[in-house]
Amino acid sequence: MSIESKLHEMGLSLPDPPKPVASYVPAVRSGNLIFISGQLPFAGNELVAHGPVPSHTSIEDAQGSAQRCVINGLAVLKAALGGDLSKVVRVVRLGVFVACDNGFTEQAKVANGASEILFTLMGEAGRHARAAVGVNALPLNAPVEVEFVFEVQP
Amino acid sequence: MSIESKLHEMGLSLPDPPKPVASYVPAVRSGNLIFISGQLPFAGNELVAHGPVPSHTSIEDAQGSAQRCVINGLAVLKAALGGDLSKVVRVVRLGVFVACDNGFTEQAKVANGASEILFTLMGEAGRHARAAVGVNALPLNAPVEVEFVFEVQP
Amino acid sequence: MSIESKLHEMGLSLPDPPKPVASYVPAVRSGNLIFISGQLPFAGNELVAHGPVPSHTSIEDAQGSAQRCVINGLAVLKAALGGDLSKVVRVVRLGVFVACDNGFTEQAKVANGASEILFTLMGEAGRHARAAVGVNALPLNAPVEVEFVFEVQP
Repeated sequence: MSIESKLHEMGLSLPDPPKPVASYVPAVRSGNLIFISGQLPFAGNELVAHGPVPSHTSIEDAQGSAQRCVINGLAVLKAALGGDLSKVVRVVRLGVFVACDNGFTEQAKVANGASEILFTLMGEAGRHARAAVGVNALPLNAPVEVEFVFEVQP
Repeated sequence: MSIESKLHEMGLSLPDPPKPVASYVPAVRSGNLIFISGQLPFAGNELVAHGPVPSHTSIEDAQGSAQRCVINGLAVLKAALGGDLSKVVRVVRLGVFVACDNGFTEQAKVANGASEILFTLMGEAGRHARAAVGVNALPLNAPVEVEFVFEVQP
Repeated sequence: MSIESKLHEMGLSLPDPPKPVASYVPAVRSGNLIFISGQLPFAGNELVAHGPVPSHTSIEDAQGSAQRCVINGLAVLKAALGGDLSKVVRVVRLGVFVACDNGFTEQAKVANGASEILFTLMGEAGRHARAAVGVNALPLNAPVEVEFVFEVQP
């Protein structure tokens, strides 16, 4: 079953790819790798959560934010592939940045929100290497930002 | 027009590539990709700004710092290409780390200082994927650090 | 002399590769690159140090933590290569995240703990591009996290 039919089953769908606000682009292909810019948890024009974990965003909401970053990243990937997500070979790497309070140590749990939906949608091809770290602040007061490297067909 | 003639028009020039202070190297090539180590905003032996945004470094000065990181990154790239920047195919990815106070949310604006000069110097080939995040502290009290992946000719 | 004999001379050895606790994997190969997930300074089931630098972890202990992350990363790499580390061509890139107090500026010194052992073990092939940054918090209260890109034989 395709990524998009699985999303549909989950009651989710790919949005129009979020437009970067600056002089950079959502995705760059080099060889068989596609690098996706850091995605924020937009749903439409609004972030689904705001502020550091756990004081302003709960771990559960941060997991949902991480999942939302993945959906936006897949939307960008689809556009970069001319609309055909079946050309994806696998996820290679995620960089997961969690805006958090000092002393917060559950960044891996938050990042699982991203990792698990990729596995749900793509199976073994959704497994990836990952760096998950805490940071004190993110753009637009987002609780999570996720960047991606995908491998695609030649 | 070449990258260096455009820099010259802007009243800028490539410095000698900053030397890393440790047992790592400024640039590594693997296949057609060149990975450039995180660059700090040195101009000569001094950073152009110090300390987190916005309490110690203004957004404008941080943008200038991000631009300076790009100039230093291009100097490293030129050395890695044996002095011939015309071998660059495109910028692939920037990692932009902005040292900032808690609650700062304009990391994208700061990172635009890097993104815009790359577009000015290289046109479409200067567009790139980007992750821009805040962090609480950077080496030598720099307000910005930028790392790069470039694609170069085989 | 092989990486593992040099480790042995130093009184060190590769552990069983640390298992990630989530739905991601320790290593992903794409072409000749292997991306290694962010490693924490585990020795057995315990981290060798806890908490930010310098208030809770000294620079020296953080350097030891960075070294430990490398040993764990090499263990992961060995497993990804079917047990044969001689297939490594070189280290390409390290991402070094140092959990630190506000105002800490010696992230490069901490990251040298990782860079120097790679040079000791692998010589010129151990040299790498590097981004070393501070962050306010890391998973499990680790003082250091290191992710890796290696180039391996086709």
